[in-house]
Amino acid sequence: MNDADLAPDPLLEPVLQGQRRSLARAITLVESTRPDHRRRATALLEALRGHGRESLRIGLSGTPGVGKSTFIEAFGLMLTGQGLRVAVLAVDPSSTRSGGSILGDKTRMERLSRDPLAFIRPSPSLSHLGGVSRRTREAVALCEAAGFDVVLIETVGVGQSETMVAEMCDLFTLLMAPAGGDELQGVKRGIMEIADLILVNKADGDLKPAASRTVADYAGALRLLRKRAQDPEGFPKALPVSALAEEGLAGAWADMQQLAEWRRAEGHWAKRRAAQATHWFEEEVRSGLLAQLTDNPRARGEMAALAAQVSEGQQSPDAAAALMLAYLRGESLDSPPQRA
Amino acid sequence: MNDADLAPDPLLEPVLQGQRRSLARAITLVESTRPDHRRRATALLEALRGHGRESLRIGLSGTPGVGKSTFIEAFGLMLTGQGLRVAVLAVDPSSTRSGGSILGDKTRMERLSRDPLAFIRPSPSLSHLGGVSRRTREAVALCEAAGFDVVLIETVGVGQSETMVAEMCDLFTLLMAPAGGDELQGVKRGIMEIADLILVNKADGDLKPAASRTVADYAGALRLLRKRAQDPEGFPKALPVSALAEEGLAGAWADMQQLAEWRRAEGHWAKRRAAQATHWFEEEVRSGLLAQLTDNPRARGEMAALAAQVSEGQQSPDAAAALMLAYLRGESLDSPPQRA
Repeated sequence: MNDADLAPDPLLEPVLQGQRRSLARAITLVESTRPDHRRRATALLEALRGHGRESLRIGLSGTPGVGKSTFIEAFGLMLTGQGLRVAVLAVDPSSTRSGGSILGDKTRMERLSRDPLAFIRPSPSLSHLGGVSRRTREAVALCEAAGFDVVLIETVGVGQSETMVAEMCDLFTLLMAPAGGDELQGVKRGIMEIADLILVNKADGDLKPAASRTVADYAGALRLLRKRAQDPEGFPKALPVSALAEEGLAGAWADMQQLAEWRRAEGHWAKRRAAQATHWFEEEVRSGLLAQLTDNPRARGEMAALAAQVSEGQQSPDAAAALMLAYLRGESLDSPPQRA
Repeated sequence: MNDADLAPDPLLEPVLQGQRRSLARAITLVESTRPDHRRRATALLEALRGHGRESLRIGLSGTPGVGKSTFIEAFGLMLTGQGLRVAVLAVDPSSTRSGGSILGDKTRMERLSRDPLAFIRPSPSLSHLGGVSRRTREAVALCEAAGFDVVLIETVGVGQSETMVAEMCDLFTLLMAPAGGDELQGVKRGIMEIADLILVNKADGDLKPAASRTVADYAGALRLLRKRAQDPEGFPKALPVSALAEEGLAGAWADMQQLAEWRRAEGHWAKRRAAQATHWFEEEVRSGLLAQLTDNPRARGEMAALAAQVSEGQQSPDAAAALMLAYLRGESLDSPPQRA
């Protein structure tokens, strides 16, 4: 511990005061992989803990084309219009493949980004990938400490990102487009099981009848799912909305509040947050153990050399694995352990 | 190394001679978790390596009710009728939930189990669960050393078991029942991508027309999948079979042989086996690292204590994870490492 660690971080007070520029700098700090930045980020997050501020964390997923940006802008402006402070964070683990084109552009929510009650954080640049979940959780914690009433965590309907976002949210919302009955099958069962609200967007103009049918289809599918202990009567729920016509947004918000209030009153809210914290603790321990294989160039080299021997049939997979594990145990004897 | 390790294992020669009772005892040995059994199993497997025997490893998946047992019995008897030696291994990672009722009963393949050219190994009892993949790979290696021409690895269409079995097979076969067009959607995309052959069973009697339609549906779906480098023209393929009427089995076997020959000739066979070995090496290293959290009662206790602190909000997930990782590094300093 050096002197810098003893003085409070200069970002501490401005973040607690909700200053958006300091919040943005703090998020940049937690996104950094530089060891000194990492130490400073950890100290800052520890100092910010325990201020008792809790945002409503809302996860929002939807495949490209369903109108996520338009929805977030309209929904966010409705909330700021009620005096609520709204933060929007984007999670895009797919951006290595998609080139990050889906998310990350402030200009796609131009009016909301100019609103003094709103804070929009684009998804990190490609160079920062890896550790997506920890970085996002830390950004959520910073927004919460900065006193935001609502934190919207946006993700694309790809891979494991929904599950990850659902593990850091109080509510999970799935945004869908109107569709024929056939396409209902395409919704992954896993997503139906984590969604608290399914919002069928574009319920306006020509698409209104199709949207109504889609809502009925999803409502039917949701009824087939087993009742969850953490849901009041009528949830999970499917609703039509139109982000473009700004219709149905107040109803969706009323449902979110009703669900949140019920879960708070019944104790599910606190239990869920506690279970999520435990989940992330276990995940961090596991990824910390596995990092031994990738962080150290010598370990990476040993792993590659043994993999080559296995591939060429000179070693069985299990004998080679035993050698690698012995090597790693030897490694930690040669060099003194780095204590946290 | 003690004296017992220097003498060849008494199971070595009889297994190489293909004696079924010794093979069964060797599989029981690799299924044991007792440390002395484990050491003996490792030594036996090392001694058996390099005999150059290669079986055709065929993965077979299908949900309960598609007629897997009937198919394996009819298909196996056809192969033994040609003088081929056939081993059948069952993988059922779901048996904790299902009570193991799906697999594991020799009596369900009564004629095949009495055939001197066949060897049927029921799935292990519930007490042996955990490490399913390593145990199965070792059983496959034993059957291969025992000179079986074909090793059928059977699994149920549940969870990750297909992916696991596909990673230890030369060919992967999916057995399906005739169905209406709607149900086609229910096939997980992941399974379609690993299947080399889709066999639609029960193509007999009243179900024959439905089976033909289902074959056409799957054939269409397979055409939509991207062509894989490891497939010759016409593969992956969907075919009708009737295990009950013993129809289509010779055609399915001819296709399997054609595919296997093509892959051998093109070098895909050896590449696939090398990639599988590397995959299992990496898996074993990862699970060996993670075993630190579960194998040692003190580490389990520390993990549980920290998880409780996280759950009660006394520690952040990340700070607690850092403490746990430091504890594990300290552990390996206090006690001398166990070399393989």
